[in-house]
Amino acid sequence: MSRFASLEHLRAACRDLPEADQAAAEALRAREARLTKPPGSLGRLEDLTAWLAAWQGRNPPTLDRPEILVFAGNHGVTAQGVSAYPSEVTAQMVANFASGGAAINQLARLSGAALRVTPLSLDTPTEDFTEQPAMDETAFLEAVSVGYDEVSDGGDLVVLGEMGIGNTTAAATLSAALFGGGGRFAGTGTGVDDEGLARKRAAIERALERHKDAVGDPLHAAAAVGGRELAAILGACLAARHKHIPVLIDGIVSTAAVAPLKFLRADSLDHARVGHLSAESGHGLLLQELGMTPLLDLGMRLGEGSGAAVALLVLRAALACHTGMATFEEAQVSDKST
Amino acid sequence: MSRFASLEHLRAACRDLPEADQAAAEALRAREARLTKPPGSLGRLEDLTAWLAAWQGRNPPTLDRPEILVFAGNHGVTAQGVSAYPSEVTAQMVANFASGGAAINQLARLSGAALRVTPLSLDTPTEDFTEQPAMDETAFLEAVSVGYDEVSDGGDLVVLGEMGIGNTTAAATLSAALFGGGGRFAGTGTGVDDEGLARKRAAIERALERHKDAVGDPLHAAAAVGGRELAAILGACLAARHKHIPVLIDGIVSTAAVAPLKFLRADSLDHARVGHLSAESGHGLLLQELGMTPLLDLGMRLGEGSGAAVALLVLRAALACHTGMATFEEAQVSDKST
Repeated sequence: MSRFASLEHLRAACRDLPEADQAAAEALRAREARLTKPPGSLGRLEDLTAWLAAWQGRNPPTLDRPEILVFAGNHGVTAQGVSAYPSEVTAQMVANFASGGAAINQLARLSGAALRVTPLSLDTPTEDFTEQPAMDETAFLEAVSVGYDEVSDGGDLVVLGEMGIGNTTAAATLSAALFGGGGRFAGTGTGVDDEGLARKRAAIERALERHKDAVGDPLHAAAAVGGRELAAILGACLAARHKHIPVLIDGIVSTAAVAPLKFLRADSLDHARVGHLSAESGHGLLLQELGMTPLLDLGMRLGEGSGAAVALLVLRAALACHTGMATFEEAQVSDKST
Repeated sequence: MSRFASLEHLRAACRDLPEADQAAAEALRAREARLTKPPGSLGRLEDLTAWLAAWQGRNPPTLDRPEILVFAGNHGVTAQGVSAYPSEVTAQMVANFASGGAAINQLARLSGAALRVTPLSLDTPTEDFTEQPAMDETAFLEAVSVGYDEVSDGGDLVVLGEMGIGNTTAAATLSAALFGGGGRFAGTGTGVDDEGLARKRAAIERALERHKDAVGDPLHAAAAVGGRELAAILGACLAARHKHIPVLIDGIVSTAAVAPLKFLRADSLDHARVGHLSAESGHGLLLQELGMTPLLDLGMRLGEGSGAAVALLVLRAALACHTGMATFEEAQVSDKST
């Protein structure tokens, strides 16, 4: 039995969202203005602390219990030869996460975040969405619910990542379903060659044609051409909002996963920041559509939440400066301009 | 008595540089290729670890003893009304560094780096270089030597930062002396208004006209229109190269400070990376001239080495992934592409 009994129920939950706590952000900014530095000279670091305060609803904000949630799924569309790796790699990488050997394990340790990996029915891939909907409503709502329930009540930041061979095809298809433009969001993913990329584009075009009736509704689109891990990420992003927890989104897959929320309520991603710009070419296009600016641009395209986990280090830098710096008065530094 | 007895002596030291250890970088890349991720998917993180190995001359590289060196100086050119803050703020901020209240203190702690701050004759500002050379040869070589000697023999990374009211004017003037273009490297610094910026540009133009005979030689230019903390940064960057220690450069001041080295030997900054793109407008222009790509772009413009210290966190992320990840064989993950 899913937390969300119907698409209507989920849709209502997506529209019933708490607002930012502007008073907490203002209190933070009042201290920021007195710190020993020229006003604004920490750039986006200053924006990040205010954003944390606004969405955690407290000043000072904290980063004591960040969690990285990685959701894994398998995809029937891999039958179309859209990926450089076979589907069994998804489960193999989940085992690698469990034994601590993946990039995200190292980044979670370095950034002081708890890491939880949730595989979603890996033995039962979604349907090949060039042929039929990836998921029916029940399967979709189940995955959304799993994601929703993974977000801890007491967390103070959620990083959303994924693993799933074939899922950049799902992300590119869902992006086009939402924003139009056919295969423009397709990239080389884990490393397909030119022929693989052509197959990927063709699969996306076929899927969009087949599901053209579904794509008018963002949740129908997410069920028809998404994937379980994308649905779970949508659920987790929604849960974080309901629980006053800011979110760091990773690359093209996690961004596409949460994009449907934006269509249900325009400010629904305001509690989220995009950790990095992926080298996967569609990500930049998708962020343009969403009007979101990534924090980092390091040419990464690994997934697993890895880019957002690096961005968590930047968040820690921002918070360390804000909470640790002396004010002009405390340090007896002249605050006057000539 | 300075380490460098004459400009000729310094010039020779700037030309006598060790090369990168390509074997160490190759050994690192051989492991990188077997880690459980698609090849190249960690983007610039992969480049950074190879760069560390090449310049430390060992595989794996380490980040066990990074040091942040901050040099502080005062500038006679502040008489021209080029800064938003009075010169006494330089010493006040040095006291703030000592008591742990500045941004760089928090970032040093967070990034696990030792912080050393070196004030350079703060009570004796350089001369107003719109009127006469900022430093004579003796004062310049002394400052270069102080910087050179601050680099520890056993360090494995050096972050170069600065503090000095008026020093973005020195940096912009030195940049124009080296690359041409008058006042184009001038920005608002700590926050001058439009009139202040006009005064700054005018001061730069007057200085370039007055010292037009000196600017043909990069070290003469650094003495004539630079500053003590810039000279010390040049010395520290040179020392790091001689000692096989990679360098992270910060914003426009530290970048301008090391730029003369490039004119003495084209590969002299290959052991350095630029930590971030400063919001100070001239920095991007200067990096274009130098052909260097910053790691971060966070709108920071504080100095103190703060942007480079945040970039050190990215370096730590790169090294953590490289040293901690399992190989395909260890994790029993399929490495084959379809």
